[in-house]
This record gives sequence, C-alpha cells and structure tokens, in this order.
Amino acid sequence: MSLPSNLPINPDRLWASLAAMAEIGATAKGGSCRLALSDEDKAGRDLFVSWCEAAGCTVTVDRVGNIFARRPGSDPSLPPVVMGSHLDTQPTGGRFDGVFGVLAGLEVIRSLNDRGLATRHPVEVAVWTNEEGSRFSPPMMGSGVATGVFTLDEILDKIAQDGARLGDELVRTGYAGDAPVEHPMHAYLEAHIEQGPVLEVEEKEIGVVTGAQGQRWYEVTVTGVEAHAGPTPMRLRRDALVASARMVTAVQALGLETPGDACTTVGILDVHPHSRNVIPGRVFFTVDLRHPDAATLAGMDRRFRDAVAAIADEAGVTAEVADFWEFPPTPFDATLVKRVRDAAAGFGFSHRDIVSGAGHDAVYVAGKVPTAMVFIPCEDGISHNEVENIAPADGARGAAVLFEALVATAGAA
Amino acid sequence: MSLPSNLPINPDRLWASLAAMAEIGATAKGGSCRLALSDEDKAGRDLFVSWCEAAGCTVTVDRVGNIFARRPGSDPSLPPVVMGSHLDTQPTGGRFDGVFGVLAGLEVIRSLNDRGLATRHPVEVAVWTNEEGSRFSPPMMGSGVATGVFTLDEILDKIAQDGARLGDELVRTGYAGDAPVEHPMHAYLEAHIEQGPVLEVEEKEIGVVTGAQGQRWYEVTVTGVEAHAGPTPMRLRRDALVASARMVTAVQALGLETPGDACTTVGILDVHPHSRNVIPGRVFFTVDLRHPDAATLAGMDRRFRDAVAAIADEAGVTAEVADFWEFPPTPFDATLVKRVRDAAAGFGFSHRDIVSGAGHDAVYVAGKVPTAMVFIPCEDGISHNEVENIAPADGARGAAVLFEALVATAGAA
Repeated sequence: MSLPSNLPINPDRLWASLAAMAEIGATAKGGSCRLALSDEDKAGRDLFVSWCEAAGCTVTVDRVGNIFARRPGSDPSLPPVVMGSHLDTQPTGGRFDGVFGVLAGLEVIRSLNDRGLATRHPVEVAVWTNEEGSRFSPPMMGSGVATGVFTLDEILDKIAQDGARLGDELVRTGYAGDAPVEHPMHAYLEAHIEQGPVLEVEEKEIGVVTGAQGQRWYEVTVTGVEAHAGPTPMRLRRDALVASARMVTAVQALGLETPGDACTTVGILDVHPHSRNVIPGRVFFTVDLRHPDAATLAGMDRRFRDAVAAIADEAGVTAEVADFWEFPPTPFDATLVKRVRDAAAGFGFSHRDIVSGAGHDAVYVAGKVPTAMVFIPCEDGISHNEVENIAPADGARGAAVLFEALVATAGAA
Repeated sequence: MSLPSNLPINPDRLWASLAAMAEIGATAKGGSCRLALSDEDKAGRDLFVSWCEAAGCTVTVDRVGNIFARRPGSDPSLPPVVMGSHLDTQPTGGRFDGVFGVLAGLEVIRSLNDRGLATRHPVEVAVWTNEEGSRFSPPMMGSGVATGVFTLDEILDKIAQDGARLGDELVRTGYAGDAPVEHPMHAYLEAHIEQGPVLEVEEKEIGVVTGAQGQRWYEVTVTGVEAHAGPTPMRLRRDALVASARMVTAVQALGLETPGDACTTVGILDVHPHSRNVIPGRVFFTVDLRHPDAATLAGMDRRFRDAVAAIADEAGVTAEVADFWEFPPTPFDATLVKRVRDAAAGFGFSHRDIVSGAGHDAVYVAGKVPTAMVFIPCEDGISHNEVENIAPADGARGAAVLFEALVATAGAA
C-alpha cells in the first residue's frame, strides 16, 4: 500500500537521518559497526546530540551514559513520556536495529516542532547505553541500570573483550554524565524493526507489540561412554551424541506442539572428544525456551526436563540440566498497547498483535513504567547482519504510529 | 578359566617383558607415551632389539624404520613367517596396544628356543614404524610403505606437529635402515588386544579375526537459515541443527538395522554460528560407516545418502555429502584364520570369530601376504587410554595361540 499523504511526520527527513547515522562506522557490506562506547559510538551519539540541540531539546546524560533529549511540556511538574532505543550495534550490525527507534523518536519531536504542537508532559528521546552487549556483556546495560536490574557500580567495572573498563570508556568518550540513573518517566514507547519474518510473511505494515516472551535458558551435559567407532558394536554403545540428537528433536517438537508463539532453540552443541572415529562420550548443548505466557512456559520447562530424562534413560547415558538464565514474560501496558493499535488502525495500516521474541530496552523499562512497542517489518526478517534492511515507507509508517501514540500519551496542551 | 599348565609359552616372561617395556615413557596414570620416533620410541626399540639379539635373532631395519628380528629356518631359501605389530603409542596410550603383538611374537621365538624347535621357514618379529599416527600422520605408515600403500619418499617428508621431518627423525634415532621396504613374507600373524568390548561381554578368551571391516567416511554440510531464536516462529525456521539431529538419528538407525557387524558413527559435529539464541544456519558433521561385507557396505552408502536427502528436503535445508575416505573390507586368509581357530580350540580356550573394526598393520599387510590376527580381551573394551589393561592369563592365551598358528605355518623342520 502506498503511503498516505497526510502523515504527521516527514518520511524523507527520517530516511535522511537514518542514512547519515549509518555513515558512522559504515561497513563494506552496507551495515554499521558502532560497538558500545567505541570511537564510532561516540561519533554517533555526538551527531544525535547535535540534532537534538538543533531541535531545541535539552540534553542530559546519566551516570551510566544514557542520553535523554527533552522537549518541554506545558506542565513542568509532570514526568516525561519517553521514546527511544539504542545507537550501538553488533560488530557486523545493520543500519536500523536500535537506530530506527531513536531517530523515529527524534522525527516525532521534529514534527511536533514543525506543527507547533505543545504537549502537557515533556517528551524525551532516550539513547540507552550498550543494548547489544557485544563489546561489554551483559546486553541492555543502560536500561538495566536505569530500572534497577543491575547496580551502577557493577556495570561501571565491566571489562570489554578489548580490556577497556566501561566506566573509563564513559569518561573517555565524554558520556560519563552526572544525572542519577533513576530517571522519572510517565510512559515509554519504543519503535523497533521486528528482527523476525512474521510481519513480512503476513504482509502486515505494523506490529502492535503486546509484550515480550518469557525466556528460560538451560545448559545440558550428556555423558555416555567414549569408545572406538570400529570395534564397539552398536548395541554396546552409550553414544552421547545419538542421545543428544534425540533431545534436540524433542526440543523442536516442544516448540511445534505448544500453542501460542512458543519458540524452542538449541543454538550451541559441542561434541567431545570430537574425533571422526570415536563415539562421543560427552555432549554439551544449550536450550532456549520462550513463551509469552508464564504458566505455559512453566509447563514447557517440565515437559523439556521429562523428555531429556526419558531419552537419557533409554540411551543409557546421563543428562544434567542446569538453569542458565531466566526472564519472566513481560506483558506491556494495555492502555499504551491499545493506543499503538488505534494509531495503526487510524492510518489504515495493516497490522497485527505480536509478541517480542527478542530482548529490548523496553522489556526492562516495562518492569517500572507503562510501556509499549511499535514493530515495523524488516527485509527477510534478517537482523544483526550488515544486510539488514527496511522499506522507507515502513519506517515512515512506524514513526507515524509512534507520533500518534506519543501525542495521545503526552496529552495535547 | 584358569590357565592350562602345558602352554607352549612362558606367561611370566611375557608379562615381565610387557612390564619392562611399559616403563619406557611410563605415564602418571599407568599408561605409556612413546610417540613415533621420539626419544621414548627409540628407547623402546633399542630395548626390543637388545632382547631379540639376546634371543639369537638377526635384526634388520628397512628404509622407513621397520624392524625385523629373524630366527633362521631350516630352508634359507624360504621367505619368513612374520609376527608383529608396533611399539609406538598414543600420547596418553596404554601398555598393550601394539606392544602385546610385538612381545607375544618375541615370546614365541624365545619359546621356540627353549624347546629347541626348528622351523622350515624363518620366523620373524616385525615392529612397524608409526602405527598410531599421533605424531606423524597418517597412521600405519611403516606397514603402508612396506605394502605399497604409500611411497617411501612421501612418508620420509612428513612433518610432525612438533616440526620434525620423519626422515630426519629416523636418522636421529638410528633407525634409518638400508634394507629395501619391500620385505618378502610367507605369511603374517598379528596378535592384538581387541580394543572393543565384545570378547569381555561374551566371556570369550580368544577372538579369531576373520578380516577387517570396510570403512566409508563422509563429511556432511547442512545449510539452513541463521535467524534469531526469539522472533522467528517455529514454522518459519530452517534450522540446520534440527535437520542434522534427524540425520544423526538416521545414521544410528542404519547401524542398528543392518545385519552383521555394521557400525555407524557421527564423531564430529560443529554448529554455526554457535550462539545460544541464534538458530543454527549451518552444521558440519562426519559420518563413519563400517561393514565387513562390500555389498552390504555399498547398500549402507545408498541408504545413508537417501536418508540425508529425504531429511533435508523435509526440513527445507540443503545437505552436501562429500566422500572423505574409503577402505574396502579386507577378509583375512582362510587357511591362516582356521589355524588360529584350531589353535584356540586345541587349548580349550573359549573363542569366537570376530571382525576387526579398527585399523591395524595387518590390514595393510593382508593386501599382499596371507594374514590372520589373534585378538585377546581388554578390560572394559578400553584402549587408546592410560587405563588400558589386560588380564595376564589372557595375554598368555593369546601368545599360546600365536605360537601354535606360527608353528603350523612355518612348518616343523
């Protein structure tokens, strides 16, 4: 569908800003590399700050480097409605992951200026520090500190793979701010590329994100008996890989059979001793189970453990299942979600409710502040890749929906 | 069963020699480390040569370092009946793999001397250079050169992982002999530990080896689509690991369902990109199919390829199957095999026919010369490991069977 002519935002300006930001840390294959608090990340932040100041915003930086660019509201006593995302990228990242949410937020502020629209609540665009977790682990650091998931001190002492200390890199890049990390917010709205194929496959223009999947991550160690591949008859083997292969199949079946957006993945699998003619004695693999409903996720946990135990018994091997990480399902704020859905419908954009399978700053923020997200399609569902791409019209639609939801939440003055 | 008192060999002398050899390169956990043409291998060879000379043998060394210790026969025009195996070990090898066959051969010669028995054919014990292939690749070098599988020149130029050239190490250790690598033999008999669990599990004292399994080795690359584990619904995935897991299961089923000593193994499996929350886009794995019958092995090859193609189709991935290595089934000489069986029966030893699943020098030699092997049980079927062990009585039984088969083949003078 072609774009309506009456959008409240400026599609060309948004696209030009995305293109200008992509020049910083541009990679050979058309992506971007702005690792958190690198020289490139600093240059991207500086460009963003200059744009915000040109748009009349007041910029503050907190002690973990999160940036907040504020357009005043008519009632200075009210907390801001915050839009945002992140500007850091994966090492071979794309031009839109995170960046789109930040620059769509800036486009909303620029459009409010164009139209001379005042809001009751202040309006802000946030840039959260180190969402990707590539240079410094864990991911979603800035939003995690702002919402109390991590303490400031533990994060400042994180050491990058290149040996740099996060606190020192904040100082070096000029983003060791003095604002407290607890930042009052009335509501939070994050626009983001879907990073998956659903909207494109179903030909939907907007994803109305109703919440984030709960995640349970495990590490499984299967121990059999290492032996020569030649002289050991099949019936006498205790092959850790054969047993693990059945477990991988069972994990997939769990995802296929559980209703309602279940996702199940084995992403790492290591075989020991890793020799062509030795029956594997030990296999390590990871399991990632996701579902938006807590009770269903708990049921998946039980079925997964039961399946692993049954397969191990039958194969004559042992299997240890260790909990690695857990994140509860995070429903977003029903009122804000409805505003996103209403905005999409108001423009006549095709849309569907969708659950976020990936982690986003919004997922941490949702633990403290009413939150919603707007998804736009991305080409072939590909993200974290230099070929990551969106259609300019989809970006414009996402920014327009963000504009409407923001105005409805910040209130016309 | 306890040992008969009338064995033709001396069990205590055999055991003492095995223990003395194990002192050279002894490891902390009770194994041996004598990497091919290392200082330890040289010391082991020197000890063996000194024992042979003390037993009245003439020792010759060929140009690839194979050692032949000869006890003359009554007819000097006849080629020798050769016993033997290897003295080199894995880095954390055991005390019996290879060593048993060499020292059982020496024990046979010592026992012929004790009894003043003359044979028509000369009798020899061979030590083949670098059977293990740990320091220099490929394995079974010495027997391979002697039988024309490899050329002398290509092997002399092999470089070890530590940078040493094989030809130079032969000179350094004093085993660059001048005998031609084509060594005339009337027959070849190799005693060896089973390196598998069959004899122990079935409580057999002797394995009558009827031949060696044919082997076909493959490399399989499965290519799907790498994607985020969260935002990619199960039904839209092309998960290379899920498909590969089904292939691993199919490879195992092929081994279980094919009659007659089929062995099928996946020993290496590598997942890309190897991240907890990324659906694997590519998996590499190896396949090792073995069967003693050529037609059956060819049928396994077809069923394997068909299964991989069908699973790939169903999973929406591609799978490339590359041939990596092939070794045809090697039946041993029926007359010699019968002599081994008759010898075991004559002593009243429990025994069974068995196919060698592992590679041995005898498998190369069998391509040129009538060959048979005698297997003895090893504890828990474990080999290539410092805990490798045998019962002294099983060693004595194996040497006794070797003695009888040798005398029957070399002929009483």
